[in-house]
Amino acid sequence: MKKATNLNVQAEETHQVRKIAVVGTGVIGSGWIARCLANGYDVVATDPATGAEQRLRASVEQAWTSLTKVGLAEGASLRRLRFDPDLASAVSDADFIQENAPEREDLKRKLLAKIDKSAKPNAIIASSTSGITPSTLQSDCGRPERVLVGHPFNPVYLLPLVEIVPGEATDVAIVERASAFYQSIGMQSLLVRKEIEGHIADRLMEALWREALHIVNDGVATTAEVDAAIVYGAGLRWALMGPFLTFHLAGGEQGMRHMLEQFGPTLKLPWTRLEAPKLTDALREEIIAGCEAQSEGHSIEQLEIRRDDFLVRLLALLKPYWPAANLDGRM
Amino acid sequence: MKKATNLNVQAEETHQVRKIAVVGTGVIGSGWIARCLANGYDVVATDPATGAEQRLRASVEQAWTSLTKVGLAEGASLRRLRFDPDLASAVSDADFIQENAPEREDLKRKLLAKIDKSAKPNAIIASSTSGITPSTLQSDCGRPERVLVGHPFNPVYLLPLVEIVPGEATDVAIVERASAFYQSIGMQSLLVRKEIEGHIADRLMEALWREALHIVNDGVATTAEVDAAIVYGAGLRWALMGPFLTFHLAGGEQGMRHMLEQFGPTLKLPWTRLEAPKLTDALREEIIAGCEAQSEGHSIEQLEIRRDDFLVRLLALLKPYWPAANLDGRM
Repeated sequence: MKKATNLNVQAEETHQVRKIAVVGTGVIGSGWIARCLANGYDVVATDPATGAEQRLRASVEQAWTSLTKVGLAEGASLRRLRFDPDLASAVSDADFIQENAPEREDLKRKLLAKIDKSAKPNAIIASSTSGITPSTLQSDCGRPERVLVGHPFNPVYLLPLVEIVPGEATDVAIVERASAFYQSIGMQSLLVRKEIEGHIADRLMEALWREALHIVNDGVATTAEVDAAIVYGAGLRWALMGPFLTFHLAGGEQGMRHMLEQFGPTLKLPWTRLEAPKLTDALREEIIAGCEAQSEGHSIEQLEIRRDDFLVRLLALLKPYWPAANLDGRM
Repeated sequence: MKKATNLNVQAEETHQVRKIAVVGTGVIGSGWIARCLANGYDVVATDPATGAEQRLRASVEQAWTSLTKVGLAEGASLRRLRFDPDLASAVSDADFIQENAPEREDLKRKLLAKIDKSAKPNAIIASSTSGITPSTLQSDCGRPERVLVGHPFNPVYLLPLVEIVPGEATDVAIVERASAFYQSIGMQSLLVRKEIEGHIADRLMEALWREALHIVNDGVATTAEVDAAIVYGAGLRWALMGPFLTFHLAGGEQGMRHMLEQFGPTLKLPWTRLEAPKLTDALREEIIAGCEAQSEGHSIEQLEIRRDDFLVRLLALLKPYWPAANLDGRM
């Protein structure tokens, strides 16, 4: 990532994002479009597939029901969506362009180079790629400094997470502007510190997913049983706290410090097929300090009370939705 | 697991669970006790540690606030908890005994053998072990057929999942009785088909946990950033659907079949440090059939609408609890 140069407020103001172009209108692209429309932006969509516009409009209408419940921004309207089958003209007037083509490096590189040629000089170009690194994606672009990864999660119109990954050539000012834009559409920007295949969240999910495939493959559980092992247990905690804070609370009064003493040796057991890193003193202290910072000075007991308060409400909310309920309960 | 023999209804009725003994009263043991008391059982607790009774009573009182909100069974009372520092007398009159000693094989084997000697002949003995296999644990017991694993999740008084794992010597009738008991205290029993280190849920969590440790160790993210990558994204879906049904919905109209076509090749990429199983035709079909069965005849669109309906409510519920909110928001 390149350091900011010649950054000034006036220039920033003239770069304010008003018009969005979304390239590729499948599950992810249409999710971006619904989210941007609900937050009061004008959106131009483009996709070369036959019938793409019709499918897109149906998807956005389905999402709109939920977005209305979440709350629409002033002036938000489905009528502010325009479909343009021509890529060059679709992106030509946009301040922010979000690309959602299939996960093929050659295809995405060529597509981003074309977008880069047709876009306004100060437009930001973000790719939704789940696995390809931004330095690779930006390498054929004339202005690689405005190209980065903005990786969302399905359904994009409801889940707030977006991973922002700058490439080697990306300007730090672009990262800041992209982050501000994503926040303006209700998202939580997570800046990924190093380029890595799968970024952060997909690596975590993929580890769990691969172990789940092993479990089914070895006849230990069916897919429904693996799913039950998540939704009735860890899944409930993960809506509130990630793996670190969860284990911080499993360690009793001493939190993560005690947890690592007690379950550190487990890292060497064959509990998954994944080999863990060595639990060095440095790693141990980094994790303990991280969890303590996340606790913001609150005791484990205070965090437990907060967790339980949430879980009681979540359990009541979930009852009619869970697999143990008749699926028709919330249809 | 041994097949049921001489199973008759009258015998079952005389074996009904009324009195519970809980051995070991740390985080997990006290969680069991709170759950059993809230469901109207008499509980005898035992633990050799100094001050154990006092700590236990404080823990159960803290849990009671949440349990009252969830709803207490008729006659449920904190006064139905008795503490007995003597192991033999604590378990002597119990119909169901739950063991929660530290995770050390030698310690647990000896303890279970002692419990087995002091317990009534028809009492059920369950271990909360997260990693040790039941065949190992029951090997020093005189009546190993009534010994099995019943592995819960923290906080035990709120999370419904319990993994039931029979050992080689466990009688199938005992498995059924244990499962019925756990259901009577509001839990979701998950029978694990094969003994395996870490059972099912902890293997999935451990895979994610090990990858999280690698990510922190490699400087890709801090603990807070890893946690954010879960709570603002996948964590929201996992309260409702496990990894299989989640990916079934990511595949568009064709569900898991399309998903495996599109992301099957990803299994070979270095997205985690865990090597995935080979995606054979047999495994592929097993997973697709599993997801289709879990869908109970509903279309992907119907499942999406149900998911979104839940997510809208969950997002509203989570707002004051999330790290982005001031932690004091729900203290």
